[in-house]
Amino acid sequence: MTTMKNESGSRAEKIKAVLLLSGGLDSTTLCALASSQGREIHALSFDYHQRHRCELDAARRAAARWKAAEHIVLSLDLSLFGGSSLTDASIPVDHETPLERIGEKIPTSYVPARNTVFLSLALAYAETRGASELWIGVNQVDYSGYPDCRAEFIETFEKLANLATRAGVEDAKSGRRAFRVVAPLSKMSKAEIVALGTRLGVDYAETVTCYSPDGDGRACGECEACRLRRAGFEAAGLPDPTRYVGKIS
Amino acid sequence: MTTMKNESGSRAEKIKAVLLLSGGLDSTTLCALASSQGREIHALSFDYHQRHRCELDAARRAAARWKAAEHIVLSLDLSLFGGSSLTDASIPVDHETPLERIGEKIPTSYVPARNTVFLSLALAYAETRGASELWIGVNQVDYSGYPDCRAEFIETFEKLANLATRAGVEDAKSGRRAFRVVAPLSKMSKAEIVALGTRLGVDYAETVTCYSPDGDGRACGECEACRLRRAGFEAAGLPDPTRYVGKIS
Repeated sequence: MTTMKNESGSRAEKIKAVLLLSGGLDSTTLCALASSQGREIHALSFDYHQRHRCELDAARRAAARWKAAEHIVLSLDLSLFGGSSLTDASIPVDHETPLERIGEKIPTSYVPARNTVFLSLALAYAETRGASELWIGVNQVDYSGYPDCRAEFIETFEKLANLATRAGVEDAKSGRRAFRVVAPLSKMSKAEIVALGTRLGVDYAETVTCYSPDGDGRACGECEACRLRRAGFEAAGLPDPTRYVGKIS
Repeated sequence: MTTMKNESGSRAEKIKAVLLLSGGLDSTTLCALASSQGREIHALSFDYHQRHRCELDAARRAAARWKAAEHIVLSLDLSLFGGSSLTDASIPVDHETPLERIGEKIPTSYVPARNTVFLSLALAYAETRGASELWIGVNQVDYSGYPDCRAEFIETFEKLANLATRAGVEDAKSGRRAFRVVAPLSKMSKAEIVALGTRLGVDYAETVTCYSPDGDGRACGECEACRLRRAGFEAAGLPDPTRYVGKIS
């Protein structure tokens, strides 16, 4: 995992980055940050039969807004496996756990091995495009309940990426690492992420975070993702522009 | 990576294994071996828009023959990324490299990050089924040109699997590893694999190895995969039952 230095985008050849873009608050902020650091963005989204597929429209808006060089939406039917409230209609979305207790246990919204799967496909994409960076919006602070958001996981994936690939093998001969996993939001609070994105010009009304939005993409205001997001705006002292289904007190 | 001990299948509860099944010679032998060791097999194949899609029919036959508890064929359009002669029609299949030089360089049939992607999805599947083993038919001897067939890659993936998952995190508390990557063919020659499968009752006429078979699933006899396979039968002193397009001298 690498914390990004503030680099100018003026170099002759841009650094190519594959960026995992869900269309939610974190990954849209990530996209704005990569753009501000002059990366040539190859955005990758997944249609994995998630309940909240309107987030794919949000991903397309973010890729356009932040001038991604390319945006691939890959179809991947993880609902064949089941095991998560996000892909298996028989497992309810958690609306009950109090905000301060989210992170104590692995939530029902955990999709088995999701970040391993997504980073693997980002790696395949990166290798074919000559991209050296894999950007991912994982966050240890708010989502400590997800095992595949931890720094140790990210570091081990970076090691794997450099063992697994033609580019990794060839660069290892000259002592370089072909691939870096870039996770700049990893140690930020939701409030810090919201403040960063606001500074960069992200319009959060255009992002979808909710795990069970209505057909129009409006947020339920009640699932764990909604509540963490809302608390982030409050802590940052910023107005919450999210479009909710009902009035939120 | 774990070398399998010869365990009896008579225990009260079978060990559950997700097994990557392409329908080729190696993975079909792997499936026969897992069956002989009493595993409850959850076979996983990919329709990744490969040229040689008739191998999926071979995978279905192998899953039925070796009594897999379940067989999932997951659609995954890796041709969106390109970069391999197996998925990108603009890159020719290699018919030229002499047999003794295959392995010196990474072949054009290398699919970027393929084993990382396939193992990641096997891991997701395993976690939802409570399976503790991921079986993969990688082979270091004949395919040393593929970086993601090496022991170091397999070991690092096993480490990642145990960091990446709910089951991995929970088992780590009791000092156990939730997942093992099982690659019993890793150090075997093609001749040893053919001899093992023949002993176990594999009908190799039913398997598809060729990278550019005809519409009827008959092998070209000329690509690197065909030539390695044919040499394996010769070295094992066994008749080659492969159905070829033309007569092979």
